[in-house]
Amino acid sequence: MMRLDARTAEFEAGFAALLDQARETTARVDAAVAEIIAAVRARGDAALLDCTARFDGWTPAGVGALKVSAEEIAAATAGIAPGLLKALDLAASRIERFHAAQKPEDLVVPDPAGLTLGMRWTALDAVGLYVPGGKAAYPSSVLMNALPARVAGVGRIAMVVPAPGGALNPLVLAAAQRAGVTEVYRIGGAQAVAALAWGTASIAPVDRIVGPGNAYVAEAKRQVFGRVGIDSIAGPSEVVVLADATNDPRHVAVDLLAQAEHDESAQAILITDDAGFADAVAAAVDAELASLPRGAIAGESWRRHGAIILVRAWPEAFALTNRLAPEHLQLMLPEPAAALREIRHAGAAFLGRWCPEALGDYVAGPNHVLPTGRTARFASGLSVFDFLKRTTWVEASAAGLAAIGPAAVALAEAEGLHAHGRSVALRLPPAG
Amino acid sequence: MMRLDARTAEFEAGFAALLDQARETTARVDAAVAEIIAAVRARGDAALLDCTARFDGWTPAGVGALKVSAEEIAAATAGIAPGLLKALDLAASRIERFHAAQKPEDLVVPDPAGLTLGMRWTALDAVGLYVPGGKAAYPSSVLMNALPARVAGVGRIAMVVPAPGGALNPLVLAAAQRAGVTEVYRIGGAQAVAALAWGTASIAPVDRIVGPGNAYVAEAKRQVFGRVGIDSIAGPSEVVVLADATNDPRHVAVDLLAQAEHDESAQAILITDDAGFADAVAAAVDAELASLPRGAIAGESWRRHGAIILVRAWPEAFALTNRLAPEHLQLMLPEPAAALREIRHAGAAFLGRWCPEALGDYVAGPNHVLPTGRTARFASGLSVFDFLKRTTWVEASAAGLAAIGPAAVALAEAEGLHAHGRSVALRLPPAG
Repeated sequence: MMRLDARTAEFEAGFAALLDQARETTARVDAAVAEIIAAVRARGDAALLDCTARFDGWTPAGVGALKVSAEEIAAATAGIAPGLLKALDLAASRIERFHAAQKPEDLVVPDPAGLTLGMRWTALDAVGLYVPGGKAAYPSSVLMNALPARVAGVGRIAMVVPAPGGALNPLVLAAAQRAGVTEVYRIGGAQAVAALAWGTASIAPVDRIVGPGNAYVAEAKRQVFGRVGIDSIAGPSEVVVLADATNDPRHVAVDLLAQAEHDESAQAILITDDAGFADAVAAAVDAELASLPRGAIAGESWRRHGAIILVRAWPEAFALTNRLAPEHLQLMLPEPAAALREIRHAGAAFLGRWCPEALGDYVAGPNHVLPTGRTARFASGLSVFDFLKRTTWVEASAAGLAAIGPAAVALAEAEGLHAHGRSVALRLPPAG
Repeated sequence: MMRLDARTAEFEAGFAALLDQARETTARVDAAVAEIIAAVRARGDAALLDCTARFDGWTPAGVGALKVSAEEIAAATAGIAPGLLKALDLAASRIERFHAAQKPEDLVVPDPAGLTLGMRWTALDAVGLYVPGGKAAYPSSVLMNALPARVAGVGRIAMVVPAPGGALNPLVLAAAQRAGVTEVYRIGGAQAVAALAWGTASIAPVDRIVGPGNAYVAEAKRQVFGRVGIDSIAGPSEVVVLADATNDPRHVAVDLLAQAEHDESAQAILITDDAGFADAVAAAVDAELASLPRGAIAGESWRRHGAIILVRAWPEAFALTNRLAPEHLQLMLPEPAAALREIRHAGAAFLGRWCPEALGDYVAGPNHVLPTGRTARFASGLSVFDFLKRTTWVEASAAGLAAIGPAAVALAEAEGLHAHGRSVALRLPPAG
């Protein structure tokens, strides 16, 4: 854990080092992935069966075994505790409500020259959702990825999830069902991404692929990009907590550890204006680590990437936060809404002392798929906008064309695009 | 040019071949580009000077020569014909008005559990705009790329443009000035992209890079993606024209050629329900080609990638159009607005017989940077949304947390993320 003090001369160098800290090393898997994609394109379902036997630790009986049937889903989800299903439903309902509010209106733009201009939003036809099968098989991620697509109006939502030994996580299936996933396949890795992008005899191709995955999945998404859309490749998760000394140090400590327990590359940063409070939080982190089931992971993250930054005044904290552009930001300050107005870059903000980031991971309503690694400077969390696209349109009458056409002709000629100019000029009334 | 007739047995195979037609071969330049980016990161401005001398055909006197001064812009634009400046201004004003209408509102979402939820839009701090220096140095592209950023509220818009021999296109500089570009550098290639992404002593880094370029520029954007945002890598341009026999065949022919004159990889497709009209357009294309200044390019595009498709009825044409998902779509039909409702995928639509696509390239108002190569299935044209990002936020009171917190705890425990659960549970009132 790094301690930085804005009052010291070495602060700027230390903060710059924090900003540049590489938290991930990406394995080079491009050649292996290219080979898998080529195999799926060439041999379709047969390649999927081969790859599943080779990489996923089980041998499907045939192509039919790759698709998870409605009966299997019903059987798998029957044993889930009702309280847990109720929690899942509360989460889904709140996520749906928030994302429904994002849905944009079509535009018709008034035009002084008498044309009619507009912009129309339409949903994608089909989306693929990658769900990791290992330790990161999170039902909450299924809700967060599938519900915005469903709210946007996407017709087909095809989920792929690797099934080590053929078995699936029942709560993941329940989440898929609640979120309106239309098809589930027990396939994973680069082969699943290839099947979604190119299609096979048994899996129809989709238009966009979203969802987290390992290095093979990330590289496969990169390689099929263009053929289909993809979401951004998420890096390790991070939180910045701004907290003054009126907070309970233990609350802040557990909030930091909630981030740190994701994996060893996660990052948790506290910024405070009180040295004593900083010490108290540091001590509370150590105390909490001792009893935390994922304490080894969280401790490693905290030692490697954690930081406590002491500032002289809050404007300094806001400026540092804008440089960090964090994925998650907790504003545990007396006037958190006013503080948020000073922040230009953050994926998601959590205001006040009753709003731990974990609330947003599950039930608050906004999406938990967020821009990491300072990309909140230019990127946003997942939303209905990711599952809609825009068509702009123009309707011109002869009079409208006559009003603005000559300018188009002049510019086309200046650019040396004479057929462009001629396509307008031919339709203009004779000069007179 | 391919003639297809939907009444024939071989139609589906022919149409599938049209859909799969590869219209571009991408040179492998990744190693060369990686080397250039590494040089700019390591040596900054000195590497920019070296690369400019090596690749751009002129030797800058020093770092100061890379930046285009306000005096240089004033001198270069002084000689532009007033009529042309007026056309540029009309285009800019109309593009501004249309993009201003796109600006979304912040959300505050009512919540039944008593929390406050919202979503806020903020502009990017800084954007880089790549402008090609060769045959494709189009002032209209400067307007289309820079104005949405300006309308979004981006503070810094840094333009880079290679200057063979050090000279720049005056109308490109006038467009930059009109569009609110804040800095212009006469650099290009992968080195310019690297400088925008990583910054040098004389060029501050940006958050997103947009604008078209050659294979080196496209690969450089790919390689800096993640460090900064990028726009999509545009492929060759295309148009689909739906026209019935009441149209003037010559109008349709010139519209097809306006697309074809862009480059040999461009594609122009006519879909009609009248065989005689199809013949008339084909003949008119040949006649117009003879007198077109860029006839060699347009002819090559038409022969290689052009197509005329004959359908039995318009619903068939709409279905084929959805499979093509064209960048540009002209609907030269009696009820174009009704036809547009049948189209799910198109970058931009032009309605009626008085609305050639070239109007949209220059002055209509919507953006001319559009998704190519069937990517309109999932992608959209450039807009203010490309220069804004969203921050979602949640504010919870103790009562709000108590209402939904237990569900978060249940889901966190089910996912094995105990610090997540604990960060919520610690703040809940004692169970009683």
